Amino acid sequence: MDIAVNTMNPETLVADLARNGRRAQTVLARMSDADRADALHAAASALRADEATILEANAGDIAAGEAAGLTGAMLDRLRLDADRLSAIADAVDAVADLTTPVGQMISRDERPNGLVLERVRIPIGLIGIIYESRPNVTADAAALCLKSGNAALLRGGSEAVRSNRAIEASFARGLESAGVPAAAIQLMPTQDRAAVGAMLKAAGLIDMIVPRGGKGLVARVQADARVPVLAHLDGICHTYVHSAADPAKARALAVNAKMRRTGICGAMETLLLDAAFSEASALVGDILDAGCELRGDERAQKLDPRIKPATDEDWDAEYLDAILSVAVVDDIDGALAHIAAHSSGHTDVIITEDVDVAEQFLNEVDSAIVMVNASSQFADGGEFGLGAEIGIATGRLHARGPVALEGLTTYKWLVRGTGQTRP
Amino acid sequence: MDIAVNTMNPETLVADLARNGRRAQTVLARMSDADRADALHAAASALRADEATILEANAGDIAAGEAAGLTGAMLDRLRLDADRLSAIADAVDAVADLTTPVGQMISRDERPNGLVLERVRIPIGLIGIIYESRPNVTADAAALCLKSGNAALLRGGSEAVRSNRAIEASFARGLESAGVPAAAIQLMPTQDRAAVGAMLKAAGLIDMIVPRGGKGLVARVQADARVPVLAHLDGICHTYVHSAADPAKARALAVNAKMRRTGICGAMETLLLDAAFSEASALVGDILDAGCELRGDERAQKLDPRIKPATDEDWDAEYLDAILSVAVVDDIDGALAHIAAHSSGHTDVIITEDVDVAEQFLNEVDSAIVMVNASSQFADGGEFGLGAEIGIATGRLHARGPVALEGLTTYKWLVRGTGQTRP
Repeated sequence: MDIAVNTMNPETLVADLARNGRRAQTVLARMSDADRADALHAAASALRADEATILEANAGDIAAGEAAGLTGAMLDRLRLDADRLSAIADAVDAVADLTTPVGQMISRDERPNGLVLERVRIPIGLIGIIYESRPNVTADAAALCLKSGNAALLRGGSEAVRSNRAIEASFARGLESAGVPAAAIQLMPTQDRAAVGAMLKAAGLIDMIVPRGGKGLVARVQADARVPVLAHLDGICHTYVHSAADPAKARALAVNAKMRRTGICGAMETLLLDAAFSEASALVGDILDAGCELRGDERAQKLDPRIKPATDEDWDAEYLDAILSVAVVDDIDGALAHIAAHSSGHTDVIITEDVDVAEQFLNEVDSAIVMVNASSQFADGGEFGLGAEIGIATGRLHARGPVALEGLTTYKWLVRGTGQTRP
Repeated sequence: MDIAVNTMNPETLVADLARNGRRAQTVLARMSDADRADALHAAASALRADEATILEANAGDIAAGEAAGLTGAMLDRLRLDADRLSAIADAVDAVADLTTPVGQMISRDERPNGLVLERVRIPIGLIGIIYESRPNVTADAAALCLKSGNAALLRGGSEAVRSNRAIEASFARGLESAGVPAAAIQLMPTQDRAAVGAMLKAAGLIDMIVPRGGKGLVARVQADARVPVLAHLDGICHTYVHSAADPAKARALAVNAKMRRTGICGAMETLLLDAAFSEASALVGDILDAGCELRGDERAQKLDPRIKPATDEDWDAEYLDAILSVAVVDDIDGALAHIAAHSSGHTDVIITEDVDVAEQFLNEVDSAIVMVNASSQFADGGEFGLGAEIGIATGRLHARGPVALEGLTTYKWLVRGTGQTRP
């Protein structure tokens, strides 16, 4: 099998995989939600039962990664142990128990001529997932796709190839034991990069691609894909502290938005301080004291001698690290103008007790998520009550912000008549 | 201006137009719906007031078209008169009075930590419309975009260039008199085809492209676009007459679905007759008597000597003419298999009095619109109660079937907190 795969041209390989996946998806789409949930529980059980095999495969990846000189952080992302694998299985069980959007009625209308029109949610079809080194994505993404009635074609990072194969094999065995065709969840059987290119071009075969990983991966996928892509490239999230901000809230929120975890896409990257906010020096002091480097414009630098000068690039930087750019703005209009010029459309926040200013900010900031008096680190499917997320999207069509099961569905129109001809 | 435009490179031109349009859109997005409606009424009034100018421009297009040897059908599509212009203005007034989806709340949730999450509909941004010879599209598409808070960049066919410029100038004057920036609706100032190519590549500048025209245009747009496209390529619509169909309904529906208008995308192109349907001969006789050519498989040919043999190509043909392919199938499974193999995902219909079979068909046919006991010619935004349509979409993401104002919106998440930090 591997030999055939390796000699096959990438387009043919992807077309074959896609056809298998699409065929499996039609079976999946006709199953009841309860049956799909049972299949996911069976997959979770299989992951637990196959712990030894999966951890052994992972040990192989770790050994290869060490030999290849991967950094400690990369090895940590790659590493599985009994606890982590158990958490992966638990997450699959949790997705199984989410309420499915499939079958939901979006709208219903009866026309004067008696036609009854309904829009009903259905699965999208075959979802391509392209991801990097975290092997948990294999199970997470598979579970979300399956629960929403979609088939998935997964292509993981080369560092995790042994782990991904073991997880996928176990997962698929669980699904099959519950009557789901194994091809509903397929892992790309080759790490040939040309096969990724073929996935990106497979319009009409793959319905949507979700890249999960760093900016380099997402940028390549967005640049090359002919298939619709659900993703965000940057999370350049702003927090604007308005003159009417509650100082205690502002200080706690700013530290949390930046420092709770600096490496996630919802972390604050630029702080905008209103010139009339009274506790600006104390606020930047809190962030500096928490171990963050600050890079400020001229007015910001006067707030604390530890603030370094910012360059033009800083206003468009996603640091994903303990670094923050900070600018002083004259008022809400100055904040809105800065955000319009530099936001990546992910999550932007205002801190204020002035309801009118808050509503203006909510209306006028054109990002997927706009928040008032909350930490931008809440930009997450779990925190939004979606149960999980396949990713966060900043595109303007289909689904935006944290995307979970609903974003993995589309709809069709059902029209019920009694013999109506069109005049 | 025209000289500068003609010497400008297409990418720069499109980028300039897009920036102007996006700037105008931010003004539009902040206007109230009542103000946007007023602006559209002003545009409709301007079209009426400028009747002489617009008809004169149209006469110029007609004269040029005649000189260029356009067919009678093409000249008819191009031709305006007082009645047709009045109908165009009336349609703009009608769109002005539709209920706007902008600002609608899609969902609302209060999290245990007190965060209040809402998803609210917002305009998409800048919509590109690429169309052929009908000058009414200039006003129709502009009205739908404007009512949903979007800016539009229009690129019409060369045959209609004088008419389109006159309509756009009049429309924009009307908008401006009501406080909308003229750049909210822009007509491409050159017919250079390279500028169309630049529109298709303008990802990040143009948010969505809607092609309006024949299959050649749509195919080119879909093949070349890097911007998301809302469209359908084919309308290969099936009607399956089940064994439990009411014969009188079936005969009336079949004739209507094919012959009411043969040139629209919702016209039936393939008739599937259940082998056990009792009045199959009478039904095909009705269609033949109505002046339609029938091309059948072997079993269908036995129903009437006038039926010609079908070739393999007939099952994938969109005739848009008084021609119909007809096949006899054994049962619902045969019909579903034929549709799965040959449908373009636009509109497929079953005629039956058996509720269970009808529901099976509704569930298992994977098209944008699935109908029971109704004519596929109802596949239309007006007939669906949407008031108008920007087009019919068969893609799987964003919006499907007849797309009107709601399909021209997206959403953002609004999160209102009281100082919540993420644990």
